[in-house]
Amino acid sequence: MGDTAAEEVSRLVEQAKELQDVAASLISRTTREEDSLRQRVAVLDSNIQRLRSSIRKTNLHSNLAQKLEEELFKARYVLSESDAAAFLPGKSHGRFLRMFLGPINVRANRRDIQLKVKEEYNEFRDRTAFLFILFPALLLMLSSRIWGGCLPALPVQLYTGWLLHLYTGLALRENILRVNGSDIRPWWIYHHYCAMAMALISLTWEIEKAPDCSQKQLGVRLFLIWAIVQGVAMLLQNRYQRQRLYTRIALGKARRMDIVWGETAGVEGQLKLLYLLLFFLQIFEAYCGVQLLKTAVVGVVSEWQVVTCGILLVIMAVGNFANTVETLATKSRVKAKMKRGKSKQDLEQDKSL
Amino acid sequence: MGDTAAEEVSRLVEQAKELQDVAASLISRTTREEDSLRQRVAVLDSNIQRLRSSIRKTNLHSNLAQKLEEELFKARYVLSESDAAAFLPGKSHGRFLRMFLGPINVRANRRDIQLKVKEEYNEFRDRTAFLFILFPALLLMLSSRIWGGCLPALPVQLYTGWLLHLYTGLALRENILRVNGSDIRPWWIYHHYCAMAMALISLTWEIEKAPDCSQKQLGVRLFLIWAIVQGVAMLLQNRYQRQRLYTRIALGKARRMDIVWGETAGVEGQLKLLYLLLFFLQIFEAYCGVQLLKTAVVGVVSEWQVVTCGILLVIMAVGNFANTVETLATKSRVKAKMKRGKSKQDLEQDKSL
Repeated sequence: MGDTAAEEVSRLVEQAKELQDVAASLISRTTREEDSLRQRVAVLDSNIQRLRSSIRKTNLHSNLAQKLEEELFKARYVLSESDAAAFLPGKSHGRFLRMFLGPINVRANRRDIQLKVKEEYNEFRDRTAFLFILFPALLLMLSSRIWGGCLPALPVQLYTGWLLHLYTGLALRENILRVNGSDIRPWWIYHHYCAMAMALISLTWEIEKAPDCSQKQLGVRLFLIWAIVQGVAMLLQNRYQRQRLYTRIALGKARRMDIVWGETAGVEGQLKLLYLLLFFLQIFEAYCGVQLLKTAVVGVVSEWQVVTCGILLVIMAVGNFANTVETLATKSRVKAKMKRGKSKQDLEQDKSL
Repeated sequence: MGDTAAEEVSRLVEQAKELQDVAASLISRTTREEDSLRQRVAVLDSNIQRLRSSIRKTNLHSNLAQKLEEELFKARYVLSESDAAAFLPGKSHGRFLRMFLGPINVRANRRDIQLKVKEEYNEFRDRTAFLFILFPALLLMLSSRIWGGCLPALPVQLYTGWLLHLYTGLALRENILRVNGSDIRPWWIYHHYCAMAMALISLTWEIEKAPDCSQKQLGVRLFLIWAIVQGVAMLLQNRYQRQRLYTRIALGKARRMDIVWGETAGVEGQLKLLYLLLFFLQIFEAYCGVQLLKTAVVGVVSEWQVVTCGILLVIMAVGNFANTVETLATKSRVKAKMKRGKSKQDLEQDKSL
């Protein structure tokens, strides 16, 4: 028995050493091949960009120039949508990710995994949109039915704690998406940093102890109503963004990792409704901020939290507005170009690529 | 000019398609090879474990059994410390990481990167240990010199916000280390969840507005003093842990990803001092908790935050104590085994492996 065991042990030791060698050679070979591919993709990518800008500058016949530009667009699309995407030069991790996660690599090395991350992000936003409506609606209902118009501190703090957790999760996920090739506008990430700060500050704000609770809580109630409308807008946005993403993918005009909050596709009328809702939300958000600042100036509430939250709300409203307008402008530029150039029909045919 | 551009464009389009194919085949080949290696490593790993436990059960001559067990330990060590480590069955991501990051993979696929993550974690702890001492020391100094013994809310809240950020970062990093093969005791991660909860709750606690500020803030002042001592202990622990890690690596007795808070190596006397300090800290932590609970029971402060923080402090103190004692017990078991078995000298020679 001792001998058999000794034999098996030495066999296992041999196997361990063998696997050690196999692993080392596999890793070094893969690393070498990946590095070389990464270099080739980077060279091609910069060549495409160089040629695109030089075509734009030359006086080529406009039809030819447009055709060439489209070809180059498609070449870039092949790079950014196929398995080659994992080897494109990546965006750096950024301070936020490094602060919370350290130097760990969060870039997926396969395109299908990158898309899975994007899908999960959409699902996460869908899930949270419902809670985004549910929690403030519950607070407002209980406030009028049970608490006699005056919110107690604890439920509001629980809600604020949830918001802090949510915005931290969103900020981390969007930074990860960025590393994985998404073209998400940086503002939407900054917006979540602001929202994190606001949630943190709100936690320190004593809303309960005041002679006139209803006046002190005006800002809080406004914020809760705003949150409900925001939740509805999130649901609509999520729906439209998926449609738009799939449309753009089908048209060969998008890289699937794009997230463009506030930009959508689908039926034209529904789209207008969404934009109206977004602008209404932004005005409402600014109004909440101004109301908070007013209560602070009038002297009903003098805590620094009120002033800071007021300023943050105004900043977020203005930033959201500017970014939505910019998105809208880009959108109509693209549309005008599409009308001037080839018809939608032609684009549709191109998707065979 | 138009013809040259057209030629270059079609060349680039061809290149893009070629790289697409190269990338797809590289990824599928690598995935196949990695999967097969992963399977071989898993089989060997379970064989080693099976044989180890069967050797323990049989009545082999104790010297032979011990020798075989050591051989198997070394085989396992080769697997877990070499490049093969990246192909060992990994720990699942766990709820906490999925909640904040989504399904992104945070497992490094190379051993040297896993070790870099560990190194950065140690550096992060070193950096924060200094701030861990600095912030509360500053607060206590300003309190006695400028604020007349009564802490204003804002600086304490800033400090608490920093603690929340710190504990979130630690919890995320430790979860990432776990996924990367570290054997960190789960308690230390739970401990950071408790600390996160406590920081969040403390943010909502209004420490300023009270008739008798010094009595209300007793718990806060105790906590600040505790934090300073804790910071000193962190610095000592970090130092000893590195020593111990390097010693154990040299002895071929450790996997480098291990983190064992509260367990250390080095000069025997210094080690005893550290353990004394740790036990003192745990008693102090429990004392802080009990003091908070007492102020709540006596009725000086009746907020729920005080009670909850008191309970959390007692839980953390008891958990820390139990885990430190357990670590100490494991340590002395290993020591006894070492004395019974081969001398340290022999172990030293084995490191040539």
